Amino acid sequence: MNERAILYRKLNNIPAEWGTAVSVQAMVFGNMGENSATGVAFSRDAATGENIFNGEYLVNAQGEDVVAGIRTPQQITIEGSRRWAKAQNITEEERAEKYPSLEEVMPSVYGELNEIQHHLEVYFKDMQDIEFTIQDGKLWMLQCRNGKRTGAAMVKIAMDMLREGLIDEKTAVLRCEPAKLDELLHPVFDKTAIKNAKVVVKGLPASPGAATGPVVFFAEDAEKVLAETGQKAVLVRIETSPEDLKGMLDAAGILTARGGMTSHAAVVARGMGKCCVSGAGELNIDYKARTINVNGYTIKEGDWISLNGSTGEVYLGQVATQDADLSGDFGQLMELAGKYATMKVRANADTPRDAAQAFAFGAEGIGLCRTEHMFFEGDRIKAVREMILADDEDGRRVALNKLLPMQRGDFEGLFKAMKGYPVIIRLLDPPLHEFVPHTEKEQRELAEEINVPYEKIAAKVEYLSEVNPMLGHRGCRLGNTYPEITEMQARAILEAAMNVHATGMDVKVEIMVPLVGNHKELRYQKNIIDTVAQQVFAERNDKIDYLVGTMIEVPRAAVTANQIAEVAEFFSFGTNDLTQMTLGFSRDDIAKFLPTYLDKNILKADPFQVLDRNGVGQLIREAVMKGRGTRMDLKCGICGEHGGEPSSVEFCHYAGLNYVSCSPFRVPIARLAAAQAALNQK
Amino acid sequence: MNERAILYRKLNNIPAEWGTAVSVQAMVFGNMGENSATGVAFSRDAATGENIFNGEYLVNAQGEDVVAGIRTPQQITIEGSRRWAKAQNITEEERAEKYPSLEEVMPSVYGELNEIQHHLEVYFKDMQDIEFTIQDGKLWMLQCRNGKRTGAAMVKIAMDMLREGLIDEKTAVLRCEPAKLDELLHPVFDKTAIKNAKVVVKGLPASPGAATGPVVFFAEDAEKVLAETGQKAVLVRIETSPEDLKGMLDAAGILTARGGMTSHAAVVARGMGKCCVSGAGELNIDYKARTINVNGYTIKEGDWISLNGSTGEVYLGQVATQDADLSGDFGQLMELAGKYATMKVRANADTPRDAAQAFAFGAEGIGLCRTEHMFFEGDRIKAVREMILADDEDGRRVALNKLLPMQRGDFEGLFKAMKGYPVIIRLLDPPLHEFVPHTEKEQRELAEEINVPYEKIAAKVEYLSEVNPMLGHRGCRLGNTYPEITEMQARAILEAAMNVHATGMDVKVEIMVPLVGNHKELRYQKNIIDTVAQQVFAERNDKIDYLVGTMIEVPRAAVTANQIAEVAEFFSFGTNDLTQMTLGFSRDDIAKFLPTYLDKNILKADPFQVLDRNGVGQLIREAVMKGRGTRMDLKCGICGEHGGEPSSVEFCHYAGLNYVSCSPFRVPIARLAAAQAALNQK
Repeated sequence: MNERAILYRKLNNIPAEWGTAVSVQAMVFGNMGENSATGVAFSRDAATGENIFNGEYLVNAQGEDVVAGIRTPQQITIEGSRRWAKAQNITEEERAEKYPSLEEVMPSVYGELNEIQHHLEVYFKDMQDIEFTIQDGKLWMLQCRNGKRTGAAMVKIAMDMLREGLIDEKTAVLRCEPAKLDELLHPVFDKTAIKNAKVVVKGLPASPGAATGPVVFFAEDAEKVLAETGQKAVLVRIETSPEDLKGMLDAAGILTARGGMTSHAAVVARGMGKCCVSGAGELNIDYKARTINVNGYTIKEGDWISLNGSTGEVYLGQVATQDADLSGDFGQLMELAGKYATMKVRANADTPRDAAQAFAFGAEGIGLCRTEHMFFEGDRIKAVREMILADDEDGRRVALNKLLPMQRGDFEGLFKAMKGYPVIIRLLDPPLHEFVPHTEKEQRELAEEINVPYEKIAAKVEYLSEVNPMLGHRGCRLGNTYPEITEMQARAILEAAMNVHATGMDVKVEIMVPLVGNHKELRYQKNIIDTVAQQVFAERNDKIDYLVGTMIEVPRAAVTANQIAEVAEFFSFGTNDLTQMTLGFSRDDIAKFLPTYLDKNILKADPFQVLDRNGVGQLIREAVMKGRGTRMDLKCGICGEHGGEPSSVEFCHYAGLNYVSCSPFRVPIARLAAAQAALNQK
Repeated sequence: MNERAILYRKLNNIPAEWGTAVSVQAMVFGNMGENSATGVAFSRDAATGENIFNGEYLVNAQGEDVVAGIRTPQQITIEGSRRWAKAQNITEEERAEKYPSLEEVMPSVYGELNEIQHHLEVYFKDMQDIEFTIQDGKLWMLQCRNGKRTGAAMVKIAMDMLREGLIDEKTAVLRCEPAKLDELLHPVFDKTAIKNAKVVVKGLPASPGAATGPVVFFAEDAEKVLAETGQKAVLVRIETSPEDLKGMLDAAGILTARGGMTSHAAVVARGMGKCCVSGAGELNIDYKARTINVNGYTIKEGDWISLNGSTGEVYLGQVATQDADLSGDFGQLMELAGKYATMKVRANADTPRDAAQAFAFGAEGIGLCRTEHMFFEGDRIKAVREMILADDEDGRRVALNKLLPMQRGDFEGLFKAMKGYPVIIRLLDPPLHEFVPHTEKEQRELAEEINVPYEKIAAKVEYLSEVNPMLGHRGCRLGNTYPEITEMQARAILEAAMNVHATGMDVKVEIMVPLVGNHKELRYQKNIIDTVAQQVFAERNDKIDYLVGTMIEVPRAAVTANQIAEVAEFFSFGTNDLTQMTLGFSRDDIAKFLPTYLDKNILKADPFQVLDRNGVGQLIREAVMKGRGTRMDLKCGICGEHGGEPSSVEFCHYAGLNYVSCSPFRVPIARLAAAQAALNQK
């Protein structure tokens, strides 16, 4: 229970109750004179995966001395020693004199060590991390274990060993840790540049990768900076909202003062594969002065900062980055994953661009297209607001007719990008107040723009406000109170599908109704969709197949899944909301008690990152069981954030889901996790 | 599907899908001259229950004419006719000439009718509502059915028929509609006075009864008016908040412009048995001018209005009221209910006064004491705010020590009032932001009062604010982040119990932990309570038995009830929150779509009034099953609003609960409903 052990367990998600084992054993001594030494070695390069024996040692020293950094450790092989000297600008003469390799100093012991490391690797069939001590000229092996490695090394070593015949395909797949693939997919900081960078604050590693750029505080400024200078800025906000979407897209990275790993900024950034550090609470952001005060530093608009979305660190100034290099080994690993996985992997993608990215990463369809994410692009928000502010159904229909061609165009793009793989499009989900301006200034501007009295807009915004928006007027509750919205969306989807189909391309349309808790809600929505479909088919004298399914995200939907499956042609578990409602946790408010709950081990992990198998998981299993009780072959998938988290993907496999869907940049992780789950089950 | 049928079904909670049956039959004619007549009669008095044959008829008329009100109908019996004339100030001469009874006009037909009505009542063993027509001197019976009646008549008729030997005890119990008992428990308007009263607006019948008084707009004014004049005022608010509690208590009734049947005003008023009309949206309340504008009327502070909490009607001016008269029949019915019910009925009571009221209505214990409801009394809120604003645990402990004696005193009062019946006290539940002032003015006042910088208070209030407070930092999440709160409350409860026990009174203490979703949360809280108990016992060198249990109100708690029952010694279903989370409906926001959902028959009833048997009900059954799987004799009850709603009580019986708990004024209803469920099952 010492601090280091507690921290280690936390970092590695090891439950405190497992404790720490201790073994006691006799000692050998590397500090018995010049004929003694101690060292640490790796059978392959832990950073690159290269198949070279490497490591460090010290003469007349104990293990602690090697790692403590008091003396400069020397390299074990001649080759390694020469490389090291070159990087340090040390001449060969100086090296040979002051920092000779073990291979040079004790050639016979080195020979023995080299033989043993090879032996160990062949025996354990994995890269070995070896500790050894030489006492008075005699070599003792202290410990060996599978070596920790970077994501890049992990993939290279697995694929090399497969080619070497050391391991088989299944072992290669099981050998790679899915979460580590993430490192390979995003830009990273230049290794030398990062050494000198100054960390000013640390937030949450909300979306991995590296980003550098001038600070802007408003989404429109990110757009402007990119348009005017071609440079991507770093968007710094207290928190982001759907209105910031375009600016987030145009930014190099996003930094927020508030919000957790599942805040708007974090979720959207991950979806975009964009670097994001969220919840850096020490930032004092002054929008008016356009400054950040943080830990004694003042950062002004235009000053450069750099974000490490994989660690949460924020650096002052520009730190050079380099793009991800997806080597051939990565592609080969993905191929193997595809071969052994039984679950499909789809992507959550809202735009043709996201869809294309997902397709490139091997997504076999779209599991969730949030149509409302396109509502903020260009002029659309105007039509959306016109719809919301309309006095009656006729007024809403006028505004919806403006949205129809835009949505149809979006969907055509998605169907094309997915080249015949199935595409699930979800009907409007968020509460309408997410689309209206909330400050008086913005409301007055809108009033002028659309020629409606300010008071009317203010009153409508007030009317729309909710005490608990998560449990409010949203999802299919919108489609059931304003059926004309569902009509427009169904028409846009079906017309788009028929347009693309008419070009000779295969199209698989799956329409998804959100937030269903009662089979009648779904029945009403399906009736509307079916009626529109008949109209569209009649207008075009043609037909297309489509499915109507539902999100399972309200606990009641899981409990009554047998009834819902009488209507639904597929289920998609919306585990973000299902977790919120099953646990009674608001994602936006959890930060006040989550740290305590993790500290006290009440929770083993953030349930919005790692699926709660016992609570939420039981509801998923119940829904699958009851749903398939009604409809034996019901297609079930997941489209919450958990769909890209390896242990949650494993759960989905065991729960019998047909697919998982996740943000494009998580598709490779999910594919590997799905393959491992299938292999582990066998 | 005509409007009248739709409305009728809605009022009577009849699902639309049942439709309306129609029968076609031959006619007889009451309008074939002076020798013909038609009428409606009751075998007993439908208003009072008195055992007298009564009814109305018209010569040379059809049924429609009797009910249409074009001609004044005449009474059937001489006695009834004379009573009627007296009430109308008509002399016996005029009556006999212009409005003679059927008994006088057609004595032999009357004799036959009287015989038949008696025959029908004996045959059907219930008060009969009879329609008849006399065609050319011959009596035809058109229809008979069990007559509708008032709550008072319902009880009297059932008890009379029991005494007469017409029905047995079980039938008497089953004959009475539980919801109608409500009419007997509250003040009502004087029947004559109400006839001339002017309805200015109609809201929701949030809490039954009648109230009349001068209008006040602020809780403190209600207190002041009562203190200064001894007159109870009518408190009119846009909506109420916990800070208004004392004023609500001192008011005759409460009227709000916003909020549904489960708004704060409605829930609290029902708990108090106080008349309340909520959600009267047409009210334009101007707090500054202290006026209400409504439908063309302006009502000023001090003007009298009257509320009918049973219909939602609001009247201008003073309308005389009369107190409820709980006759001996009522007591006898309750005794029978107690004899046949297998479930116990407890009350939700927060104060000794509520507890005493509940005890008088026959509650066998307290199922829910919301300790925080006492936080607004007197000076307490100051100590509560001091605790919230404290910088650290030490600061919080100082403030908690001030609250300790106050809470202990409250609990002593409760234990005394309950005279040895079990008392469940729930630990602090609401989020802390409910206890801090939200306007700048109030915050500045508080700053001055407790000598803390305004900025600090404003920052803390901002910090405490939540996006979805329902799913936020509340319930046991408070007790687990601030264990010192649980310590103080546990100490207050146990010390109070021991103090009362020391006076020789029996005390049954049950401590309830709210919002548990994970057995570890409960384990932590139980450990704190048990530790405090050991301390208190050691200090006093004495002991007392106590139970520690939990609310089941988070869906995850139901799903993992087997684990939770390893710790919990009882379960209490908090169906308000369980409904919110299972259905994903915020009680505060449901008004935007509930009317549409009822119209479209997606919902058959407001799920916050009538328990959702399929969704929430399945989770309750699952929790009972899993809980008792772990702990065979686990005591299970319900303490949500549903505990006082008859059809929900019936469900609780079938779900195997040990007790239901409801607001004091619903205790008789729940007792009767529980008895009926038990009898119907047999």
